[in-house]
Amino acid sequence: MRAYDLILKKRQGGSHSLEELKFLIDGYVAGDIADYQMAAWSMAVFFRGMEEQELAWLTQAMVESGQQVDLSGIQGIKVDKHSTGGVGDTTTLVLAPLVASAGVPVAKMSGRGLGHTGGTLDKLESFQGFKTQLPAQHFIDQVNSIKVAVIGQTEKIAPADGLLYGLRDVTATVDSVPLIASSVMSKKLASGADALVLDVKVGNGAFMKQKDQALELAREMVKIGENLGRRTVALLTAMDRPLGCAVGNALEAREAVEVLSGEGPDDLRQLCLELGANMLVLAGQHEDLDAARQQLANNLDNGSALAKLKEMVTAQGGSGREIDDPGLFPAAKLRHSVMAAESGWVESVETTDIGLAAQLLGAGRSRKDDIIDLAVGLLVKAKPGQRVEKGQTLVEIHANDQQKLEEAAAMVGAAYHIGQEQPQPLPLICGRVSHGDGSPVP
Amino acid sequence: MRAYDLILKKRQGGSHSLEELKFLIDGYVAGDIADYQMAAWSMAVFFRGMEEQELAWLTQAMVESGQQVDLSGIQGIKVDKHSTGGVGDTTTLVLAPLVASAGVPVAKMSGRGLGHTGGTLDKLESFQGFKTQLPAQHFIDQVNSIKVAVIGQTEKIAPADGLLYGLRDVTATVDSVPLIASSVMSKKLASGADALVLDVKVGNGAFMKQKDQALELAREMVKIGENLGRRTVALLTAMDRPLGCAVGNALEAREAVEVLSGEGPDDLRQLCLELGANMLVLAGQHEDLDAARQQLANNLDNGSALAKLKEMVTAQGGSGREIDDPGLFPAAKLRHSVMAAESGWVESVETTDIGLAAQLLGAGRSRKDDIIDLAVGLLVKAKPGQRVEKGQTLVEIHANDQQKLEEAAAMVGAAYHIGQEQPQPLPLICGRVSHGDGSPVP
Repeated sequence: MRAYDLILKKRQGGSHSLEELKFLIDGYVAGDIADYQMAAWSMAVFFRGMEEQELAWLTQAMVESGQQVDLSGIQGIKVDKHSTGGVGDTTTLVLAPLVASAGVPVAKMSGRGLGHTGGTLDKLESFQGFKTQLPAQHFIDQVNSIKVAVIGQTEKIAPADGLLYGLRDVTATVDSVPLIASSVMSKKLASGADALVLDVKVGNGAFMKQKDQALELAREMVKIGENLGRRTVALLTAMDRPLGCAVGNALEAREAVEVLSGEGPDDLRQLCLELGANMLVLAGQHEDLDAARQQLANNLDNGSALAKLKEMVTAQGGSGREIDDPGLFPAAKLRHSVMAAESGWVESVETTDIGLAAQLLGAGRSRKDDIIDLAVGLLVKAKPGQRVEKGQTLVEIHANDQQKLEEAAAMVGAAYHIGQEQPQPLPLICGRVSHGDGSPVP
Repeated sequence: MRAYDLILKKRQGGSHSLEELKFLIDGYVAGDIADYQMAAWSMAVFFRGMEEQELAWLTQAMVESGQQVDLSGIQGIKVDKHSTGGVGDTTTLVLAPLVASAGVPVAKMSGRGLGHTGGTLDKLESFQGFKTQLPAQHFIDQVNSIKVAVIGQTEKIAPADGLLYGLRDVTATVDSVPLIASSVMSKKLASGADALVLDVKVGNGAFMKQKDQALELAREMVKIGENLGRRTVALLTAMDRPLGCAVGNALEAREAVEVLSGEGPDDLRQLCLELGANMLVLAGQHEDLDAARQQLANNLDNGSALAKLKEMVTAQGGSGREIDDPGLFPAAKLRHSVMAAESGWVESVETTDIGLAAQLLGAGRSRKDDIIDLAVGLLVKAKPGQRVEKGQTLVEIHANDQQKLEEAAAMVGAAYHIGQEQPQPLPLICGRVSHGDGSPVP
């Protein structure tokens, strides 16, 4: 077998066998296949796409390129969740204890990554003393005993994905649906869960700006999961505005505590209930989504979800005192309100710019070795579809540096479009994809 | 400017500016742009194509990536010829002295290359003592004094082409019409001629198997030439069978002597007259092709073209005695006739396999450092459309090694398809493309 022939085959619209894809992926990871050949192949995939079975095989080859996590020591059906990323995406901090509080095991491995804010690990480090590295057996024991643990993911998972992503990033082949789908799914499937709920964001703060693109990505990912033997459901959810109010690490952790206390922003609560209900159904805890939603809503309102968060934080070395006294979360020195310059409707928000303003304040990394300021960020007080009066606060800025505060304030001000038309923002849940493209999970 | 953005632009179907193409090509030659980026870009070009002006600019950037030959010291309009290559393509050996015999300067730089037989330089070395390297001023002086010189081309011509071709060859992006067209034209335009006649081969012995592909390539090359200020004409000519009879270096040189003596195979004579007539018209020597053809035919028949060959060979160090006594050409020790196994029509010939048989005998290189045997090769005695009787010679093999002879004989035998249907081979001249896609040269 030769890489040349496989590039040619894809260029001509052919479909690869599992053997061919393993040859390509293993050869690339081993350094036997050159960057320039994978770059040409990736561009050919961009133009020709991949068939359903072929894409599952590509993902399988990527999964098998590295270590696969063995969660078989954990009792019950393990359901993982993955979000394609947006601004103010605090769902994991709420979902992990919430789902665990319903008796379903959550064995989650998260990353730090680059972006507007840190990853789930950074947000969890807002709880003083929280440890994100646990020995493997400790991790499994903790999930068996208290149903939940969230730790850092190993870099040995799907090494082909890291290499291929790095190459795609410099050869303009990132935005290929099959390559995105296999990238996401290879990492999740190598992490050992039995089933998967995907949160595919749509809108100007997401990678997929349009619903049809997001739907296509969701369908491809669900097909990959199902073809590789994992029950997979995807929700399409709104990211034409920030989710919740908080954008920043400690601010989001604090907001998660609020939602787990039965309070907090309604959109974040609703999304967590919907994602959590799908996780419960996939885990076999409930037969229908309504009953699952109801159990989870009860757990938010009766304190059991919040208690589960405290259990998890203390099990992983934290004091958990922030949960009883949110004033103990890291807090920024400076506050500033960005106000509406005129009265009217918030017609739209440049969601990505809100995220970039938080990153500018120090909430996120633009390079791997950047140091995050857990305290800084934004609280979004007005969203598209909302009526505001002149002088009303749109966003509250939390900063530790006056100059950055001023730059962020200017960015945030420019990100809001206020006008006289009442707009129609996306519904929070724009769609749901499960096996067979939309049929309900049995 | 960033290579990434240029790859993305092409992937999205955009058209590059000259500045962008110079950035890409110069950056690639300088090593600032990586192979994987050029590979992704080439694949995007494969799918998106290039616009007319853009393709001329790409060619210009490739021409300007290296040395450009200055032929301004040669009096008159210099017309070059290029063939896209086939089996038994002896035209340059006939054309150079023929055109010069009509008073038009021929300052030709040729290669050796890989292929079924050697390049023009190898064939010329069948004339004992012939030198293919001349000092630049000597080359120019010779053309001014006797109107013709053929020497080896410098490797400093269009270095971007060599690099890019090497990359395309391992990334399945060779057969992209704009990339082929710019590759051919960059080398020819950097060689300094004022005008250009292209011989684009069509058929199973050529790179372009189908007439529509060949026509597309011819049109793109003519447009590039015209857009860069060189009068350019392309002929589409038959390569669904070998051209002439001889396939091999000394055998072809001998055949060229025959054609220049007013004898030899009719197809080779006709093609040389047609290509030569177009060269004479582009050089301003004649207003119409008929008159040009007539002058050239006269020069074949009256001995002046043959005399010009002898002038050239002796000017470049040869004795030229082979011209008077073709028995002096290098000759192989072994002869073998491949005979028709049945009577019927030669329905088709696997032309490439005929070429490969010659290469197997030692007539051509498969690697740069292979040593060629000038004496070996084939004489093709029956072509498609011809009636043969059982036992009649199809091909005469000239070999220096019994085992290779037997392998070549088996290959040649299998390459002939004899049946009861009279086939319709391609006409020798299948088409002509000039400025404006087919309008006659004024």
